[in-house]
Amino acid sequence: MAATAPIDADTAGTRHQDRMQRKKTVIDQRIAEAAARRGVLLVNTGTGKGKSSAAFGVMARALGNGMHAAVVQFVKNRTDTGEIAFFRNCPQVSWHVMGEGFTWETQDRARDAAAAQSAWAQARAYLNDTRIDLLILDELTYAFKYGWLDLDTVLADLAARPPMQHVIITGRAAPQALIDAADTVTDMAMVKHAFRNGIAAMPGMEF
Amino acid sequence: MAATAPIDADTAGTRHQDRMQRKKTVIDQRIAEAAARRGVLLVNTGTGKGKSSAAFGVMARALGNGMHAAVVQFVKNRTDTGEIAFFRNCPQVSWHVMGEGFTWETQDRARDAAAAQSAWAQARAYLNDTRIDLLILDELTYAFKYGWLDLDTVLADLAARPPMQHVIITGRAAPQALIDAADTVTDMAMVKHAFRNGIAAMPGMEF
Repeated sequence: MAATAPIDADTAGTRHQDRMQRKKTVIDQRIAEAAARRGVLLVNTGTGKGKSSAAFGVMARALGNGMHAAVVQFVKNRTDTGEIAFFRNCPQVSWHVMGEGFTWETQDRARDAAAAQSAWAQARAYLNDTRIDLLILDELTYAFKYGWLDLDTVLADLAARPPMQHVIITGRAAPQALIDAADTVTDMAMVKHAFRNGIAAMPGMEF
Repeated sequence: MAATAPIDADTAGTRHQDRMQRKKTVIDQRIAEAAARRGVLLVNTGTGKGKSSAAFGVMARALGNGMHAAVVQFVKNRTDTGEIAFFRNCPQVSWHVMGEGFTWETQDRARDAAAAQSAWAQARAYLNDTRIDLLILDELTYAFKYGWLDLDTVLADLAARPPMQHVIITGRAAPQALIDAADTVTDMAMVKHAFRNGIAAMPGMEF
């Protein structure tokens, strides 16, 4: 084995600087190439925690930029959540809880489907409204899993939205055609979850 | 092949109801078993979009429940983001931007390390403060990747926090010992990202 010379702090610092400068060159090039500005379609899918909360975090960011946002919730039916209590006071937000609750609570497919269709009518109104900069369609993906909505109709409505409008769709098992249509897709995988280890859903964390 | 009898809507509805009732039994049992109430440690890691925004979405939920929160940012150095503009007006939030910016921008490891150590001193003050219900340590994981902080010290400080305090840690490549210590871990995998397809980082979406 070849002997290696000891590396003093200055040399290590210079190497770090060289490596970071090369990284900066690559990243600056990528930033220069990413010049298109238009409304994006984000999909937060997967089995882990964070799909809806990431959408609400982006909404906070958008509101801080002076934008206007709307939320349509397709499954949840609680109106006493922390997120609603918090955002309700913000005049830039319109919030619609339009679900009937979890499918295992309603146990009524026809009622679930009717609720989803009403929710989509509300969503479509926002997809035609240029005043809305960000539209969150929370738990929309379940409407495809259970056959409550026609995916092609939804994709056509999304494609026809105002060019600068951003949309975030959340929910498990996003269908492939939705992923294909999206600009940014994150699969939020559950590595572990407190609930599975006997810890209750707590206010501030889960609702 | 055996002929199957046609299924009328009533039969399908009954089958759906039966299946959902069985699902409800399982889920109700799980909820009954998850009775522990204590502060949880969440880790949002992975290469995809949503790690920090999910933390801020949970914070909105916590604030809506009347809780108090603090944010310490370990890498980011921008103070003109939408999230800061939005949450700055909320008296329940303390926000500390303590990073020096991306490593490829500073190109100075000693400066990055000193900044991370100052940020950890701030974090530790909150980890000793029972008035803080939720502490967000944004992009903390990079401190381990680059050797700015000692992981065992950080884990010991986290373990000694008030029993009902929730903590959310974000950043890529969370070390295994941090994952082991956490209650809930989500790996946010990038399926696709608008930036990689030539779309600029836009206000309201990325900052």
